[in-house]
Amino acid sequence: MLKSDASDRLTPSDHYTQLRALLREAATLGSVAGLLNWDQETYMPPSAAEHRAAQMAMVAGLVHERRTSPRIGELIAACESSGVAKSDPDGAEAANLRCIRRDYDRATRLPTKLVTELAHTASLSQEAWKNAREKSDFSIFLPWLDKMVGLTRRKAECFGVPAGGELYDALLEEYEPGATAKEIDAIFKPLALRLSTLVQELTAKGKRPDDRFLNVSFAPAGQHEMGQFVLKHMGFDFNAGRLDTTTHPFCSGMAPGDTRLTTRYRGERFADALYGTMHEGGHGLYEQGLPKTGSSSRWGEPLADSTSLGIHESQSRMWENFVGRSREFWEWLLPHARKFSSGALDGFSPEQAYLAANIVTPSHIRVEADEATYNMHVMLRFELERAIFGGGLKVADLPGEWNSRFKRLLGVDVPDHHRGCLQDVHWSFGLIGYFPTYTLGNLYAAQFWETIRSDIPDLDPKMARGEFADLKSWLNDRIHRHGRRFQAGELCQRVTGRPLSSDPLMRHLEGKFKAVYGI
Amino acid sequence: MLKSDASDRLTPSDHYTQLRALLREAATLGSVAGLLNWDQETYMPPSAAEHRAAQMAMVAGLVHERRTSPRIGELIAACESSGVAKSDPDGAEAANLRCIRRDYDRATRLPTKLVTELAHTASLSQEAWKNAREKSDFSIFLPWLDKMVGLTRRKAECFGVPAGGELYDALLEEYEPGATAKEIDAIFKPLALRLSTLVQELTAKGKRPDDRFLNVSFAPAGQHEMGQFVLKHMGFDFNAGRLDTTTHPFCSGMAPGDTRLTTRYRGERFADALYGTMHEGGHGLYEQGLPKTGSSSRWGEPLADSTSLGIHESQSRMWENFVGRSREFWEWLLPHARKFSSGALDGFSPEQAYLAANIVTPSHIRVEADEATYNMHVMLRFELERAIFGGGLKVADLPGEWNSRFKRLLGVDVPDHHRGCLQDVHWSFGLIGYFPTYTLGNLYAAQFWETIRSDIPDLDPKMARGEFADLKSWLNDRIHRHGRRFQAGELCQRVTGRPLSSDPLMRHLEGKFKAVYGI
Repeated sequence: MLKSDASDRLTPSDHYTQLRALLREAATLGSVAGLLNWDQETYMPPSAAEHRAAQMAMVAGLVHERRTSPRIGELIAACESSGVAKSDPDGAEAANLRCIRRDYDRATRLPTKLVTELAHTASLSQEAWKNAREKSDFSIFLPWLDKMVGLTRRKAECFGVPAGGELYDALLEEYEPGATAKEIDAIFKPLALRLSTLVQELTAKGKRPDDRFLNVSFAPAGQHEMGQFVLKHMGFDFNAGRLDTTTHPFCSGMAPGDTRLTTRYRGERFADALYGTMHEGGHGLYEQGLPKTGSSSRWGEPLADSTSLGIHESQSRMWENFVGRSREFWEWLLPHARKFSSGALDGFSPEQAYLAANIVTPSHIRVEADEATYNMHVMLRFELERAIFGGGLKVADLPGEWNSRFKRLLGVDVPDHHRGCLQDVHWSFGLIGYFPTYTLGNLYAAQFWETIRSDIPDLDPKMARGEFADLKSWLNDRIHRHGRRFQAGELCQRVTGRPLSSDPLMRHLEGKFKAVYGI
Repeated sequence: MLKSDASDRLTPSDHYTQLRALLREAATLGSVAGLLNWDQETYMPPSAAEHRAAQMAMVAGLVHERRTSPRIGELIAACESSGVAKSDPDGAEAANLRCIRRDYDRATRLPTKLVTELAHTASLSQEAWKNAREKSDFSIFLPWLDKMVGLTRRKAECFGVPAGGELYDALLEEYEPGATAKEIDAIFKPLALRLSTLVQELTAKGKRPDDRFLNVSFAPAGQHEMGQFVLKHMGFDFNAGRLDTTTHPFCSGMAPGDTRLTTRYRGERFADALYGTMHEGGHGLYEQGLPKTGSSSRWGEPLADSTSLGIHESQSRMWENFVGRSREFWEWLLPHARKFSSGALDGFSPEQAYLAANIVTPSHIRVEADEATYNMHVMLRFELERAIFGGGLKVADLPGEWNSRFKRLLGVDVPDHHRGCLQDVHWSFGLIGYFPTYTLGNLYAAQFWETIRSDIPDLDPKMARGEFADLKSWLNDRIHRHGRRFQAGELCQRVTGRPLSSDPLMRHLEGKFKAVYGI
């Protein structure tokens, strides 16, 4: 039923066109928040923090009002009944409309006041987190985290507990549509067992590679140049993007033609920065591969958006690990890396680099963890989040719980909160339910990689020459260009011919690490 | 007459409080445009330009709608009739309300469509200007400048020709409230004569100082550190601001606690960059000195805004010229500058630096011109703008007209458009009527400086020790903190006890340059 008189004279295709235009407009305003956020993380002077929170709240409120406007509801209903999408229910437009409906129904459950309060608090909370992390003092962050958890709980309650599920599922749905905590738990539990068996076997029977390559120190400026060099070869378009430095690396596909990556450098442990950069670069290629620009742009519509964070992480983790930690990658990069390091990397062979990049050691920082122990870091966060949202864990008890569970999972003591529960930016933003997508990403990446290997038989020699164009084209064609046309599970089935499984990841890890450790 | 029922129950003071809150809200949204703009000038990747224009247009439209909302009109009327300001008609609140009324009446003359079109076109036009300037090709910029002039003309026509004035006055009013082209012309004409007499005398009879100091080349990184060092000593608060690099230096007091400066470096001619930085620093101190932050913040209200661009320029030109080109400044800075230059400035004395910084030479670039010829550059632009808006000069004929008038005024041929009519960013934004405020700024600066000298008798020895705190406090107290409480002319009268005159500037220039040139 259309309420507006003018609409009655519109054709079904006009309704759809108008709906798309309104979504585009809302997205354009929303993209301003992307810049406000990026700036806060990169260049904003400290004294601007309070005002920035007011700006964020205001923009979030305006965008929410647009996204939930009754007019959009009317147009969705008109499109649904008119058959714009009905003629081809499996087609792109039908999928687009289904996602628009889903988003609208979810958004209209949130009061604008909650949306603005979340944006306002998240902006300030982030500053508190930066400060707390720097001083390794959880008490600075506690009141803010408490607020963010409270607001996020209210948000989850607005969405409601899904039938047969738990409150936490309402948050997961935000990042990984269709996923539930129970299903994720069913994947994570056996995976944890297989991973810890592998790690124990490597530690007990294997020969740990020489790690000197990783401990070479060289100037951040050289590391930055190297990062840009690698990104260019990956196919990242610097005409439509940037690389800057931040406390916590991220990628923001903030607007059409504008995808911004950040990373962080220390003089030593250059490899952490490099892999962080490649990780964000993988996200960046996904963002640049979505149909957001040009004459066929679907900017503002689900077809121009990433389908899930699990798939997003599959892109970042693939470039970081399947490419970046391969023998061929180092055969290509090392001669260049020597130059960027002003000779500090002279004397190392590609094989030494490859082996060093694949040392398995339980360590404190998730984003710097090896491929085998990485997922333990994710599982820890998943368990803690679930405990907070359904198991009665209090935010104030989080540090203690973190430390004891960390010890249990990874066998290592946490020396301070900087290297413990304060290391990640996510919770300061209210990004709860986000972490499990990292491990889903690893699983998707491994499964995609097996298909890629069979589709591009000469991938290895190409990588050894720094030629990543075929890989990028494959990802563009099979993953990126579809946007949200297929949900993650469906995309996986279409691309690999099978549903998601832990086997490809375990095959990859066991095959590689046993060889590296000489078992 | 109040139309809204709820308002009838409000007290006069409630009306004023509500009015201030609405203005603050509009300003907060408006400050987002400040960031969009700063980012476009500093870090935005080229492919984002088209979308940035859409963002700018959208934000400009939303802000305009808020600023011109009927509710604001009602509240202004209620405040005017209720006597909130009547009890003290010479007080700050009365001035605030008068400015609010003036701004509202002006804003409501502009249709939102024109405002968004201006913002959209300005954003794209700026990219065209950058490109044209880089290639020194006016034809790239011509269609955009034509559009911007057309839109600016429509804007001026909305404001209307003031009684006894000309269309250009409507634009001047935007930047220098109360000023008219006729009055400015009456100041500029005799000033031009006195200046050209001085320049001729120096050239004919004087001894030109050695310019080797200016031709020293040193790395942009060292120049950047030196710029930050000088700004810190000027009292610029880096906790609430930044310094970045751009094509055209500017200062953006974009938000409470957030004042951003930009400058540009070349390996050689470090002094140009230094003076550019000090110039923007002067603007920045004004912005940081306005009551925009803290518990008594008037953010969004005229009391927290600069009173005119002439006064703004008086601040930037004062730091650049009266401080930066003084003998005492170089006595203080040179030992530090030697370090920042990694020894490239070794062997020069403060006296050599001082003399070199005061060489008078007709040259092409306004922002790099000496103090004596600088105003000729401004007068040229004033004449051209006036000719476009009232004298029938076509935009397409601008380059030819620029070159011939430049030759007449400064006696130098213009070698290319890069160093000619494409050098300044202003017109690409539609900033027409802005240029004359630079010379007004020089006049105000000179007049203020005479008062400062008598108020701070030991200013010279203090400057020679890099102690600028008294000067900054004086400016904060006498100029900055008032915001728009006093119009430029009134402020000048209050601060110096006299109306604006060209005499202080001429006294300063003649006194300094004749001594430097040994006449």
